[in-house]
Amino acid sequence: MTPGRPVPPPLGRPLTTAEALAGQGTLTAAMGAVSADSGLVPLTIGRRAPKPDDVEIDIEFCGLCHSDVHATRGEWGSRPYPLVPGHEIVGRVRRTGAAVSEFRVGELVGVGCLVDSCRECDSCLEGLEQYCERGNVGTYGAKDPRNGDAITQGGYSGTVVVDRRFVLRIPEGMDPAATAPLLCAGITTYSPLRYFDVEPGDVVGVVGLGGLGHMAVKIAKAMGAEVVVFTSSEGKTAAAGELGADRVVLSRDPDAMGAAKASIDVIIDTVAAPHDLNPYLRTLRLGGALFQLGLPPSDMPPVSPGLLIRRRLAYSGSLIGGLAETQEMLDFCAEHGVASDIEIVDADGLNEAYDRMVAGDVKYRFVLDTKTLHTPSEKADA
Amino acid sequence: MTPGRPVPPPLGRPLTTAEALAGQGTLTAAMGAVSADSGLVPLTIGRRAPKPDDVEIDIEFCGLCHSDVHATRGEWGSRPYPLVPGHEIVGRVRRTGAAVSEFRVGELVGVGCLVDSCRECDSCLEGLEQYCERGNVGTYGAKDPRNGDAITQGGYSGTVVVDRRFVLRIPEGMDPAATAPLLCAGITTYSPLRYFDVEPGDVVGVVGLGGLGHMAVKIAKAMGAEVVVFTSSEGKTAAAGELGADRVVLSRDPDAMGAAKASIDVIIDTVAAPHDLNPYLRTLRLGGALFQLGLPPSDMPPVSPGLLIRRRLAYSGSLIGGLAETQEMLDFCAEHGVASDIEIVDADGLNEAYDRMVAGDVKYRFVLDTKTLHTPSEKADA
Repeated sequence: MTPGRPVPPPLGRPLTTAEALAGQGTLTAAMGAVSADSGLVPLTIGRRAPKPDDVEIDIEFCGLCHSDVHATRGEWGSRPYPLVPGHEIVGRVRRTGAAVSEFRVGELVGVGCLVDSCRECDSCLEGLEQYCERGNVGTYGAKDPRNGDAITQGGYSGTVVVDRRFVLRIPEGMDPAATAPLLCAGITTYSPLRYFDVEPGDVVGVVGLGGLGHMAVKIAKAMGAEVVVFTSSEGKTAAAGELGADRVVLSRDPDAMGAAKASIDVIIDTVAAPHDLNPYLRTLRLGGALFQLGLPPSDMPPVSPGLLIRRRLAYSGSLIGGLAETQEMLDFCAEHGVASDIEIVDADGLNEAYDRMVAGDVKYRFVLDTKTLHTPSEKADA
Repeated sequence: MTPGRPVPPPLGRPLTTAEALAGQGTLTAAMGAVSADSGLVPLTIGRRAPKPDDVEIDIEFCGLCHSDVHATRGEWGSRPYPLVPGHEIVGRVRRTGAAVSEFRVGELVGVGCLVDSCRECDSCLEGLEQYCERGNVGTYGAKDPRNGDAITQGGYSGTVVVDRRFVLRIPEGMDPAATAPLLCAGITTYSPLRYFDVEPGDVVGVVGLGGLGHMAVKIAKAMGAEVVVFTSSEGKTAAAGELGADRVVLSRDPDAMGAAKASIDVIIDTVAAPHDLNPYLRTLRLGGALFQLGLPPSDMPPVSPGLLIRRRLAYSGSLIGGLAETQEMLDFCAEHGVASDIEIVDADGLNEAYDRMVAGDVKYRFVLDTKTLHTPSEKADA
């Protein structure tokens, strides 16, 4: 605990110390926000004792996603505090419930953006849990109906307990830290590329070269596509090439954009700030699609219907991926040697890392090393 | 000729009287605009003598499309005048060129929005002439490169000469007048429904119940879909039912729109005025698509990326259809007894018909009976 910091009241139904001990739950160290302007501070949180279907995981690494920043700072609407973010989790199985036979203690596993869903609606039955019609259960900051509506707490912590259905297998030989960002940035870009059925020879455009964008480049290349990176900064040309991009188009250069007209099959747009999509739509071939993955805080300039009509284009969106597809993505990345380019940070460097993320100063994903978390106190903050 | 009306100078390279006679071309009566504010006036235009690949057609009926109004009134940018509109043409073969073996004199045929394209680009080779990469040749107001860049003149006229590749066969038993609107309104709605692969049991939404919308309802029903019509006017409920709609949703009723949430697979939006698409997008199921077919004269309110992301929706456009698909549509309509609901107008009723179209006062398509055209003069206006 940070001395002098007021201990926030336990929120909702997360485990208190007494409850944790009574149910053989555990306390674990974490980093989280206690208010929209607190920054990330050391916390101690309770984790439930594994139920028969649960897997208890010792977290080794957790990626830092831009949405963690938005959530902890209350930029996407009010959130329950204390809030421990993190949904790019890699760790080792510590304990399993009685009904779990598919995971062994010590095995390397992952947890992404979801820890539950209704499991009954058409989306869930199709393995599209991210689009659960009753609302999926996010890895942090969400009510967890199968666990007494406890508020979920994420992966900036020492352990996590997750139903086996939402635990992923990390293929052998993958680097645990560089694999963590695949659980969100990887699957979020893999899913629309698969949905569009990208094949060798297709031309894939990537807008924005951050955490998501750099994964889009690597995954599209691994799918055999020709990759074009759109960037507003000439300084990113070399970096795009190092990631495997075949071409770079300066989005502020009308001649370059004009030369790219009708040359691209599908665009993965990872920019979360409002921006004009029409110049990118003009670069799409007949039947092409632009997938927007980032959610801007305010209205985007309107898309021109004429562009959509004259080349039968689609302006689409896509949300992370389902569990089966996430496993498929991990297996694909293992087979093709795809991982994230990362910078490892300690627990006490998280706030600075957030500021650098906001400034776009990271190549390309921060990953928290949970060994650097403080020792948990004897009382749960949440 | 209307006495006293100044004869406009021949424009570009359309046939003059002398040229028409010299090349065994013909003069024919027409109705067209001589300026953006002239309205439609009687004209005499020249048609080329059939070349080896040409089919000369005695036009019987021509549908009135809303785009005819925009074009003749200069609302879609400046146009060459005199301008004879009309691209929903049904008539009988009068003469054929030496290389034409697939059409016989007297046979009922149709011509739609296109009379040529480059025939060489990927789009053309795929039978998607409407998306010709070098620009298709519209049935009126377009330069015709294979005919000396003459400006094409449309179907509000007694005859037309068209390359056999752009002539369609009207299946036996179809009513010539009620079939004419299929050549634009029919194919424009059929194509996106086919592209989305609508099957029996799918739910199709239709926004706007005009010329295009009423065809969308009939075609979607014939495909076996359940059809939901969105309308802003309660007065259209009965009419929608008569066309075959299964349900009507009042778009101004938030409760009704809320009840329709996530219930529709694909929406055909035929409204050409700017309007907010987000309420309609909310009615789409996971993976659904909204096809906008009308081109508004000004910006639309922006589409919410969050809606696209959370249900993997597509906001798309679609432009008429290719020649092969148009023939397929005609055969489909013949098989399923689908035709347009029409009101036949005389040549001297065209201007009033235009005003009524702008006011939305037609169920659902005007069709010009070309028998009512004046007698051509001995000198071509264009």
